[in-house]
Amino acid sequence: MAEKMKAVHYEAPFKVSVKEVETPKIQHPDDVIIKVTTKAICGSDLHMYQGRTAAETELIFGHEKIGVVIETGPGVTLLQEGDRIALPFNVADGRSRNGEERRTAFLIGVNTGFAGGAYGYVTMGPYQGGQAQFLRGPCADSNALKLLKGTEHEADFALLADIFPTGWHGLTLAGFRPGKTVAVFGAYRRSASSVYVVDTVSELLEAAKKIGCIPIDFKKKDPVEQIIELNERMVDRAVEAVEYQAVETPGSKEKPNIVLDQLLMVTRPTGGLGIPGLYVPADPEAPDKKSKKCQVLLSFGKLFEKGLTLGTGQCNVKAYNRYLRDLIISGKAKPSIVVSHEITIGGAPDAYEKFDKRVDRDPKVLIHPNGPL
Amino acid sequence: MAEKMKAVHYEAPFKVSVKEVETPKIQHPDDVIIKVTTKAICGSDLHMYQGRTAAETELIFGHEKIGVVIETGPGVTLLQEGDRIALPFNVADGRSRNGEERRTAFLIGVNTGFAGGAYGYVTMGPYQGGQAQFLRGPCADSNALKLLKGTEHEADFALLADIFPTGWHGLTLAGFRPGKTVAVFGAYRRSASSVYVVDTVSELLEAAKKIGCIPIDFKKKDPVEQIIELNERMVDRAVEAVEYQAVETPGSKEKPNIVLDQLLMVTRPTGGLGIPGLYVPADPEAPDKKSKKCQVLLSFGKLFEKGLTLGTGQCNVKAYNRYLRDLIISGKAKPSIVVSHEITIGGAPDAYEKFDKRVDRDPKVLIHPNGPL
Amino acid sequence: MAEKMKAVHYEAPFKVSVKEVETPKIQHPDDVIIKVTTKAICGSDLHMYQGRTAAETELIFGHEKIGVVIETGPGVTLLQEGDRIALPFNVADGRSRNGEERRTAFLIGVNTGFAGGAYGYVTMGPYQGGQAQFLRGPCADSNALKLLKGTEHEADFALLADIFPTGWHGLTLAGFRPGKTVAVFGAYRRSASSVYVVDTVSELLEAAKKIGCIPIDFKKKDPVEQIIELNERMVDRAVEAVEYQAVETPGSKEKPNIVLDQLLMVTRPTGGLGIPGLYVPADPEAPDKKSKKCQVLLSFGKLFEKGLTLGTGQCNVKAYNRYLRDLIISGKAKPSIVVSHEITIGGAPDAYEKFDKRVDRDPKVLIHPNGPL
Amino acid sequence: MAEKMKAVHYEAPFKVSVKEVETPKIQHPDDVIIKVTTKAICGSDLHMYQGRTAAETELIFGHEKIGVVIETGPGVTLLQEGDRIALPFNVADGRSRNGEERRTAFLIGVNTGFAGGAYGYVTMGPYQGGQAQFLRGPCADSNALKLLKGTEHEADFALLADIFPTGWHGLTLAGFRPGKTVAVFGAYRRSASSVYVVDTVSELLEAAKKIGCIPIDFKKKDPVEQIIELNERMVDRAVEAVEYQAVETPGSKEKPNIVLDQLLMVTRPTGGLGIPGLYVPADPEAPDKKSKKCQVLLSFGKLFEKGLTLGTGQCNVKAYNRYLRDLIISGKAKPSIVVSHEITIGGAPDAYEKFDKRVDRDPKVLIHPNGPL
Repeated sequence: MAEKMKAVHYEAPFKVSVKEVETPKIQHPDDVIIKVTTKAICGSDLHMYQGRTAAETELIFGHEKIGVVIETGPGVTLLQEGDRIALPFNVADGRSRNGEERRTAFLIGVNTGFAGGAYGYVTMGPYQGGQAQFLRGPCADSNALKLLKGTEHEADFALLADIFPTGWHGLTLAGFRPGKTVAVFGAYRRSASSVYVVDTVSELLEAAKKIGCIPIDFKKKDPVEQIIELNERMVDRAVEAVEYQAVETPGSKEKPNIVLDQLLMVTRPTGGLGIPGLYVPADPEAPDKKSKKCQVLLSFGKLFEKGLTLGTGQCNVKAYNRYLRDLIISGKAKPSIVVSHEITIGGAPDAYEKFDKRVDRDPKVLIHPNGPL
Repeated sequence: MAEKMKAVHYEAPFKVSVKEVETPKIQHPDDVIIKVTTKAICGSDLHMYQGRTAAETELIFGHEKIGVVIETGPGVTLLQEGDRIALPFNVADGRSRNGEERRTAFLIGVNTGFAGGAYGYVTMGPYQGGQAQFLRGPCADSNALKLLKGTEHEADFALLADIFPTGWHGLTLAGFRPGKTVAVFGAYRRSASSVYVVDTVSELLEAAKKIGCIPIDFKKKDPVEQIIELNERMVDRAVEAVEYQAVETPGSKEKPNIVLDQLLMVTRPTGGLGIPGLYVPADPEAPDKKSKKCQVLLSFGKLFEKGLTLGTGQCNVKAYNRYLRDLIISGKAKPSIVVSHEITIGGAPDAYEKFDKRVDRDPKVLIHPNGPL
Repeated sequence: MAEKMKAVHYEAPFKVSVKEVETPKIQHPDDVIIKVTTKAICGSDLHMYQGRTAAETELIFGHEKIGVVIETGPGVTLLQEGDRIALPFNVADGRSRNGEERRTAFLIGVNTGFAGGAYGYVTMGPYQGGQAQFLRGPCADSNALKLLKGTEHEADFALLADIFPTGWHGLTLAGFRPGKTVAVFGAYRRSASSVYVVDTVSELLEAAKKIGCIPIDFKKKDPVEQIIELNERMVDRAVEAVEYQAVETPGSKEKPNIVLDQLLMVTRPTGGLGIPGLYVPADPEAPDKKSKKCQVLLSFGKLFEKGLTLGTGQCNVKAYNRYLRDLIISGKAKPSIVVSHEITIGGAPDAYEKFDKRVDRDPKVLIHPNGPL
Repeated sequence: MAEKMKAVHYEAPFKVSVKEVETPKIQHPDDVIIKVTTKAICGSDLHMYQGRTAAETELIFGHEKIGVVIETGPGVTLLQEGDRIALPFNVADGRSRNGEERRTAFLIGVNTGFAGGAYGYVTMGPYQGGQAQFLRGPCADSNALKLLKGTEHEADFALLADIFPTGWHGLTLAGFRPGKTVAVFGAYRRSASSVYVVDTVSELLEAAKKIGCIPIDFKKKDPVEQIIELNERMVDRAVEAVEYQAVETPGSKEKPNIVLDQLLMVTRPTGGLGIPGLYVPADPEAPDKKSKKCQVLLSFGKLFEKGLTLGTGQCNVKAYNRYLRDLIISGKAKPSIVVSHEITIGGAPDAYEKFDKRVDRDPKVLIHPNGPL
């Protein structure tokens, strides 16, 4: 392993570049070092890219990654050199209460003064991101999910770190069970009887239709009315579980409180709302006082009358990734259908810029930091 | 059974009287008629009493009641004359989906255009209340819970219709499990390791202390600070489940949004908030526009950061009452410790007035419409 | 409705015939009468056909059926003439504790001295079977599941009464969750990552392969060894949930204790065994004393060492049928792939004989008592 | 820390002695060394004591222990010198799938070729027991449960390693929920409405009565008949959850199959049987062939007819011990009521001999290896 490696380096708002940095080293007996084979760019990276957070210069982005173990610390017992692994976006040490209870997004002990740590993300602890050639994986026996050796399912497995389990988590938060009818305000699927995909991006709505979902274009007409009309043709069906995957701060244009009220309206009494993704507790650049404090005006009387439940929070990836991996291996899931581009690390600055400007509408970009597979 | 009976009769805001009315009759093959032995006055009856709802003159109040079966319809198969039964405050016919799934507070089919029906309550369907000598119990095989014959545990059993299961429900909504630490913002208990009772009523806080809870006086100091200070002395304990039993409309003085934010603040990451009781979806008399629509400003960013869940809605009494009855019979629960007065039906108008004016602070009044037992 | 109708009539061991019998009438206010459109023959009907039970002459077989409501009792509130409905094989009145708790196969009150009742089955209560032109449906609001009107999905919907939910139930009993690996000893499927289908019937194994399952031929080699060999190629997968759908008495050739021990052996530690279907508590014709008492010699030490759970019992159809119906309507499930023959009622005697002799190996026969649709 | 320490040393069947042995050392970065303050003798230690297992000379017994951390390995992050901790009887590394899923009694990676490891027990891995002055605690951040510092609740906390959570686990396996009626065949309690304690030891039955349980003396009359008679006086109560804590091999006098059949008989349809404790998969000294293979003849037809579930396996201590600790601290649980003797390490040989001969019937002995507290 060389002393230096290439990494996607945050320089200033709207500017990332690829630089040579120190290759990471074992710091704790339970660490491993992996050679990163694939790393995705996530919508939540854009918050930092746009300079709306306290992210400091030199931060290496990247929390969705897979790779091959090239070095193990003396405390590692289950992993060996050569193992191909996926690391969740959360850093979980398997050592404290929330870890024991499969709430691996909320661990104390991995990020001082905070419940939960992640790779390459502002305020989420001292963990370099994966948009680099090599990466240190802490508490590796606990964090790593072993994959089939080789390069099979590379793009699918890369999505095991965040977006595939995060979509799954949203429905869990909403109390989903097989056979229920689901509306997803912003997108993906898990053996419901009917899935309404509510969005404004026409490419995404097209894609949703192809995999058997019912597209609802937010812009055409109030989505609540559209869904109610469609449901009228059914026997006694109604939307029971709703998932909203916003990756937006309250100050953004999407107005979370409007969306939250729409969720309430489409959901049947006793149904559930699941809200994974990312909300921040404070957004100093937001236009008004309430939004700065990330407060939302909620139709609480309606929520209560319907007896709805509301589940929130970042995804506990380890609670799902093992099972989702097996659905990929057996051919029953193929999350890589959302991947739009595969690039090498040199293309990262350009990819960030295009993503930010939505040149390709809603891209999902995979980076191969050590070259194409 | 006589043609006429005595009943507590709503006349106008702040005025109820005891009048002679028609004795109820079997209307559907699955009905029973019971002779009411005990009926409680509930805080939620005060909303109607104060004229803040659309309750019409002649409505008979009363959703917490027990009594003895004196007549059965031809479709009744499990009940017989002489059976002593408790009827939940919800009218549940055991016939549609939410009923099958133990969500008996949200049945369609019992209250046109609405999910859920109740006795003696405005908008909750055509069901006379139990503050009367006799009562029609619809879908009786499904609704009734059989009790021990005789008069044993009368006061405890009377509370099986609403407040005992409602308190239990709140913790269920909050994801409670034995051994967790709980804060109850407005009262009662279920085998937690520590229970903080947060309130302003000193008599209630005294009572809470007697049954082993930790009283937090809301007025003295911010309850969040008080709880955090107390927790610091523990090993790694923190409040995990919070229940808030408000029986207040948004227009009332208690300001639900302040309480909701306090709930958020005291709860540990991944904890749960359970909110049973009663919120209304609209309160025309409320002082401002938001409160009229029963909207609440919620610190959603904080809720999300902590990954909290929020459960709401009226209690599905049938999901709990059988087990709570058995805890009463075996001496492991005695909810009647909250009962402050037992009266005959003639005393009802006076009891309502005193309750409304909080002459005895926080009373729980039982009425025996057919005389003392 | 005519006074008489045609029905499949049990005469003697190995002999059924089609006779004219009294058309059923409303007996209780909550009854409906349906015109049967489709009725299936079930493997468990063969027990009675073969004379191995106490089934009496004149019993009308048939617990899997759908049809159209032609008359409603005065207590029925949710159904109307013309509704197309499916009735579960269990008779459930929605009135007692197991009903409240979705254990609708174990109701008291529908079958004196027994927990649970069914249509057209010996010892399961006074309920005529559905292999007839008309059928009385008791407690109809609770029992009936509404279907789309018309004839769409007729064969799929007919299987909602028993075999589709029973297969689903088996996995529930085994503690199944999406992504787990499953072995089914005797057939069907529910979004597992891998499904091993263990059987001896080559047609069935072929069919299993076509729908993506992994066939294991019991006769070729010990199924435990075959499954273990196949699993070795996986990352860390092992069979976690096992379902065994025996419809055999202990006296039969299949030797339940051998199969039970095979289930134990293939299952990973902490996994689950789900055993729906039909076992009887006594089999007087069995060859030995233990089998007569339906006792089974179980490797209990091994079961305990692995910490396995074992779930048993007839399917609570109402706990699943609503959701399975919606999976059929939305095109996500098509249980009718197992249907091999569709006949009119006149063909029933011949179909029973062929089924008993396994002329077509493992048939699934649908009868249309009122003629083809 | 001295080079040598005292430890309870297995010499031969029916013979243990206290010897000087090497003080344990850190072997893996995640280890700690504790000074043992209290250690209990468990009924399952007697199996080894009686020479019925393959336990080798020099094995140090002891899986129930608490103590104070005196040394930490370089990988330990959450524990410090001076922390008072309880270690579960299972060795759990928080690193593989069953650990993630709170099945900490079934970990791979801690005991080659086996799912699950424990301290001081034959076949349970290379972990010295705690009946010694010092103990190595592997994977300490994951395994240890922090306690209040000092000596408060010493005897209660000592029971957090095994018997308190094991009793709790039994009811979890049986599907227990608050308010259910429970029968425990061999003893303890968890907020049921009624608890029948079935045993033959009169002192234990007396003790059960004192804490509010209903004693059933096995010797006087068939326990099934006794329970059914007592239940007849109740409203609709029946035993729903049954726990059997046998610590016996099949070859022992207690005849597990008779007890298993009794469990079946007392349990209501849809109830659950929970079987924690210890069964072994092979008992070479057993009197007959079936018992040698630890096979049990089970009334499977009856089990199926009732739709019972059966849960088995050693206790996953970490799934419960945190919450049970908090019930002890808050004064809501006091498991030490079962403690009969407290001794220093020199008294261990005598205590084993008396326990084996049941000189004091059913003792629970605590050893303080470093002297009285």
